[in-house]
Amino acid sequence: MTVFLVGAGPGDPGLITRRGLDLIRGCDVLVHDRLVADELVEEAPAVAIRIGRERLDQDEINRLLVLYGSRGLSVVRLKGGDPFVFGRGGEEALALAEAGVPFEVVPGVSSLSAVPAAAGIPITHRGVSSQVTIVNGQGPLDFASLASTKGTLVFFMALARLAEITTGLAAGGLDPDTPAAVIASGTGPEQESVISTLELIPEAADGLRSPALVVIGDVVSLSGRIAADRGTLAVA
Amino acid sequence: MTVFLVGAGPGDPGLITRRGLDLIRGCDVLVHDRLVADELVEEAPAVAIRIGRERLDQDEINRLLVLYGSRGLSVVRLKGGDPFVFGRGGEEALALAEAGVPFEVVPGVSSLSAVPAAAGIPITHRGVSSQVTIVNGQGPLDFASLASTKGTLVFFMALARLAEITTGLAAGGLDPDTPAAVIASGTGPEQESVISTLELIPEAADGLRSPALVVIGDVVSLSGRIAADRGTLAVA
Repeated sequence: MTVFLVGAGPGDPGLITRRGLDLIRGCDVLVHDRLVADELVEEAPAVAIRIGRERLDQDEINRLLVLYGSRGLSVVRLKGGDPFVFGRGGEEALALAEAGVPFEVVPGVSSLSAVPAAAGIPITHRGVSSQVTIVNGQGPLDFASLASTKGTLVFFMALARLAEITTGLAAGGLDPDTPAAVIASGTGPEQESVISTLELIPEAADGLRSPALVVIGDVVSLSGRIAADRGTLAVA
Repeated sequence: MTVFLVGAGPGDPGLITRRGLDLIRGCDVLVHDRLVADELVEEAPAVAIRIGRERLDQDEINRLLVLYGSRGLSVVRLKGGDPFVFGRGGEEALALAEAGVPFEVVPGVSSLSAVPAAAGIPITHRGVSSQVTIVNGQGPLDFASLASTKGTLVFFMALARLAEITTGLAAGGLDPDTPAAVIASGTGPEQESVISTLELIPEAADGLRSPALVVIGDVVSLSGRIAADRGTLAVA
């Protein structure tokens, strides 16, 4: 058997792939992220071993995957979003490859586009943006370079540093009136979003909680026209 | 009823979302891209109207969606990848919003990460790349800016201009030895990929056909270690 590194999608359990769901339903062991929907964890067989990862560090997860995988069990490692978009799937894949344990990567719907979509924002749009830069908000950031980047900026895991990031981008030359959005718990039942400008978004987003995505660029201004109020024009 | 803008995923029909598949199975009208897998088109009810989009321009598609949607039919607009990652979903959403036709966006697995994954390449990897820039290869390109961008570069629809792009990036200052990959028909049964360097990839990719994704950056060098030969260590 095999270890499957499966993307669960951005929050809404309907956004898992057909293949990912089939694998959960047939697994012996399910190792899942904290942010994965309960509905997906419950799809595993009643006899399957379920392991929430909250008390495990990455090395421990890698060891567990190698351990169960090398015993010939069908192991699903269920990760929020996509395993290879800030998902540390590469580290798990390398650990398995080095241990000689067969594995498959089953991609998922990344928050990257799905979460802005749920707030009515297309990250690319003809005549508005034909380029998107995806940034890890927890990493070192080169504000001058990011400020001069064309198109849409999407920051993952950036809520805690939002004021630092927006101030840095403005100091780097990005127009303070550039449209900006923060979407918390995107695609899930508790989704909340605010839309403002680069300058004012930290204040507007006060009170929002992680997980959250930050989107900066002219595409944000389309959200009013696309009007994705989840109560009326629902976005799945 | 509603018009659903549904992402079909990158090629492998197992990578459609559960929600997307349910909508196809219940639709009255299916308007689908040429590159969507036949298996997904066949999931529509036998009585559903099926419309391949190859002979329609974007305005005609928009008009069809508004026409069928305003008649109260359940319309699925099935698009390769994700509707909002170079999918022109925003244009369809705007046309529907302006006509007062209710719609939902159902995101899909984008080629962005799934196609490199199928060649063993994680587009982000701890210590290697924490930033990804997604570029439309058919648009105007600022090579100096792209060459100085950190992290991974992913070009969509760039195969026809590959030599121009790699020469431009090298002239802009990107190291000619930077690892580079081209993956054609990624995740599908006819997937082919080549891995080389920025300088040599146009020659190495000679003979590959669209649709293809171009990936440039140090993450490409992980593919040998992750070893995603679809014949042995299959990537879904």
